[in-house]
Amino acid sequence: MTAAVSPFAPEAFPDLCPIAGIEVAVTACGLRYQGRDDFVSIRVNSENPTIAAVFTSNSLVGEPVKWSRKRLPTSPRHLLIAAGNANVFTGTRGWQVLEETASDIATREGITPDSVYFAMTGVIGEAFAAKPLLDGLGQCVYAAPDTALWQRAAKAIMTTDTFPKGTTYTAYIGDTEVSIVGIAKGSGMVAPDMATMLAFLFTDAAIPQPLLQEMLAHAMTNSFNSISVDSDTSTSDSVMCIATGTQNCTIAESADDALYADFRGALERACADLAWQVVSDGEGVTRIMHIEVSGAETAGQAKQAALSIANSPLVKTALSGADANWGRVIMAVGKSGVCLDPAQVSVRFGDHLLAENGSVCDFDIALVDEYVQESLVHIHVTLGAGTESACVYGNDLSYDYIRINADYRS
Amino acid sequence: MTAAVSPFAPEAFPDLCPIAGIEVAVTACGLRYQGRDDFVSIRVNSENPTIAAVFTSNSLVGEPVKWSRKRLPTSPRHLLIAAGNANVFTGTRGWQVLEETASDIATREGITPDSVYFAMTGVIGEAFAAKPLLDGLGQCVYAAPDTALWQRAAKAIMTTDTFPKGTTYTAYIGDTEVSIVGIAKGSGMVAPDMATMLAFLFTDAAIPQPLLQEMLAHAMTNSFNSISVDSDTSTSDSVMCIATGTQNCTIAESADDALYADFRGALERACADLAWQVVSDGEGVTRIMHIEVSGAETAGQAKQAALSIANSPLVKTALSGADANWGRVIMAVGKSGVCLDPAQVSVRFGDHLLAENGSVCDFDIALVDEYVQESLVHIHVTLGAGTESACVYGNDLSYDYIRINADYRS
Repeated sequence: MTAAVSPFAPEAFPDLCPIAGIEVAVTACGLRYQGRDDFVSIRVNSENPTIAAVFTSNSLVGEPVKWSRKRLPTSPRHLLIAAGNANVFTGTRGWQVLEETASDIATREGITPDSVYFAMTGVIGEAFAAKPLLDGLGQCVYAAPDTALWQRAAKAIMTTDTFPKGTTYTAYIGDTEVSIVGIAKGSGMVAPDMATMLAFLFTDAAIPQPLLQEMLAHAMTNSFNSISVDSDTSTSDSVMCIATGTQNCTIAESADDALYADFRGALERACADLAWQVVSDGEGVTRIMHIEVSGAETAGQAKQAALSIANSPLVKTALSGADANWGRVIMAVGKSGVCLDPAQVSVRFGDHLLAENGSVCDFDIALVDEYVQESLVHIHVTLGAGTESACVYGNDLSYDYIRINADYRS
Repeated sequence: MTAAVSPFAPEAFPDLCPIAGIEVAVTACGLRYQGRDDFVSIRVNSENPTIAAVFTSNSLVGEPVKWSRKRLPTSPRHLLIAAGNANVFTGTRGWQVLEETASDIATREGITPDSVYFAMTGVIGEAFAAKPLLDGLGQCVYAAPDTALWQRAAKAIMTTDTFPKGTTYTAYIGDTEVSIVGIAKGSGMVAPDMATMLAFLFTDAAIPQPLLQEMLAHAMTNSFNSISVDSDTSTSDSVMCIATGTQNCTIAESADDALYADFRGALERACADLAWQVVSDGEGVTRIMHIEVSGAETAGQAKQAALSIANSPLVKTALSGADANWGRVIMAVGKSGVCLDPAQVSVRFGDHLLAENGSVCDFDIALVDEYVQESLVHIHVTLGAGTESACVYGNDLSYDYIRINADYRS
């Protein structure tokens, strides 16, 4: 079953530079998929690398998430990513597979098993033996990643994604220019607080672990935690950022230090860019909505209302049918449970004011119907309860979402 | 656009008796639909009728909900139900339509406008004039409802429903036998805490308003508040119960009194029966799931986890494809945020134990795949956190749900 490529796919994979201290090997281990790469093995061979990571909020997490959480903040020497089986609800067998694999990596690389990190994506609840992972390691040929190799890695971690996702930014820390490179995959089970969403960022900056952790966590708010494909939250979501420290940087004591302002911004843009690529490759996507809710009592309430819109099946199906059914937006805001003043609520689609002060306006429905044909639809709701606001991205619910998900396992 | 009838439609509409004190007129007022009944006008002409009502939890409600909430607990003399336009977000114009209509009813019937109740369903945010409603009233011919007339009323209030919904029970209050008759409509925007769901129950029992209100509210828990079609909560949901009091009943002081035990049970069964009909006629339904969550810390948490399963797009699409993808059930439980012990979680589909103590079991997938072909699939999850449990009904997410909702407005 091959899905057509998302209409939002970029024309080309971006040019990504190598990151000193990072070597990548990509191969096909046959864990589940046949005839395609599914295995990415990453060496970290700089002197004092640090790692930050954020994981799913789901309380039933996979063994790789348990493993990597337990290792954090140990300095990373190796990162193994495999696609096809998420290694979730596989119990002690699933954990033993990771132990065997980490032990094999440790022997091959002359490192400790504790410095190995894992991320896996794919089907839940299917036990498997370590053999494919060990076979994959035996086939690995490592190289400093150029664009082609980064792209191959981004492709290898895909499940139902229709295009590989990459991003890069540069930033200054003091006088030192550093690079950030990232790859990610979606593309179902994607909801705030993370998703079947894996993202890996690499930088040559030297940043102490606690500071890197704080910056990465902060970068989630307006990126991976502001998108929703289907309101489902995966058991395997992981965002990791490895800083090899090969660039000599001044070190500040706090993540908030002005020294890091440029780097923080670049990290946030890299995360936002990858998050955008994830939502724009949501399963079956044909149209995207950018939802802004303002006039909220708190930013959290603004986001709650925006997500209620983004996750409403009725809003999503209307978007799929290019139906300017703004009444469903009203319904979704009302059911979200946030503070609002019904007499002050307004709704805009793009520049079209549809309802104001709690009542429908006179507008030309033909113009609005034309507007919602666009591939990116802006929805703006004001609540009349305060001054806070939030934005999220969501996508439509199409026939293809069902086609993809009604028989993903088989 | 005509949807096929739900595979769960009953073979025939049930036999419903008249309720003394209730007269019904059904007609086509052309509010939105053409060539079909859409208007149900109900006279209450007994001596001291009482009414109980429960409304949507959505904070942006339609004018009819505002109107009827405001009238409660005034003794009801008239109930008007119209389909095609929900009269939501129509502002002062929508309110004025109700005032004009109530005033017209008051003049025709020799009652006060305050004793008129309204319920409307249909599109949100489209203003309209009172004329169709007034025209409808002019056409009304009232009669004591026999089965055929109840069925015609149940059909007239349908929107995307594929079959009319009716139910009846009898009960004893002391030595007096009383009847309960109910009609309802679904069938999208249906989620707990009510839905685009209208239900009207009528009984000839004499029950003081506060007691009737308490019994109706209690009856919601295991009926309308335990079903979810699509997680969306309508702005118009209303359940009303009118007691004409034509049967002389002993009156107790409390709704909990043993005198009412049989009646309470019958009211609960009537609500549960209508709720079942609503979920079994959910938009695009091809398969239903009965979800039981046990081992929860509280009943509320059990229901929260059960609803997280019922509302998960990934669980619903798997059900649609008859895919025994129980890993998605795990995901949905984990994302629900309820207390659980991962090492004690188990999952059953019917009699098939799929996971136990937090890990996948050895089972014959062919048998489970065969089981999920059934039209009613039982899903049982234990959380290992306590002794409370809850059940909910949900349905699948099919192509037809999208077909129906991608252009409902047009």
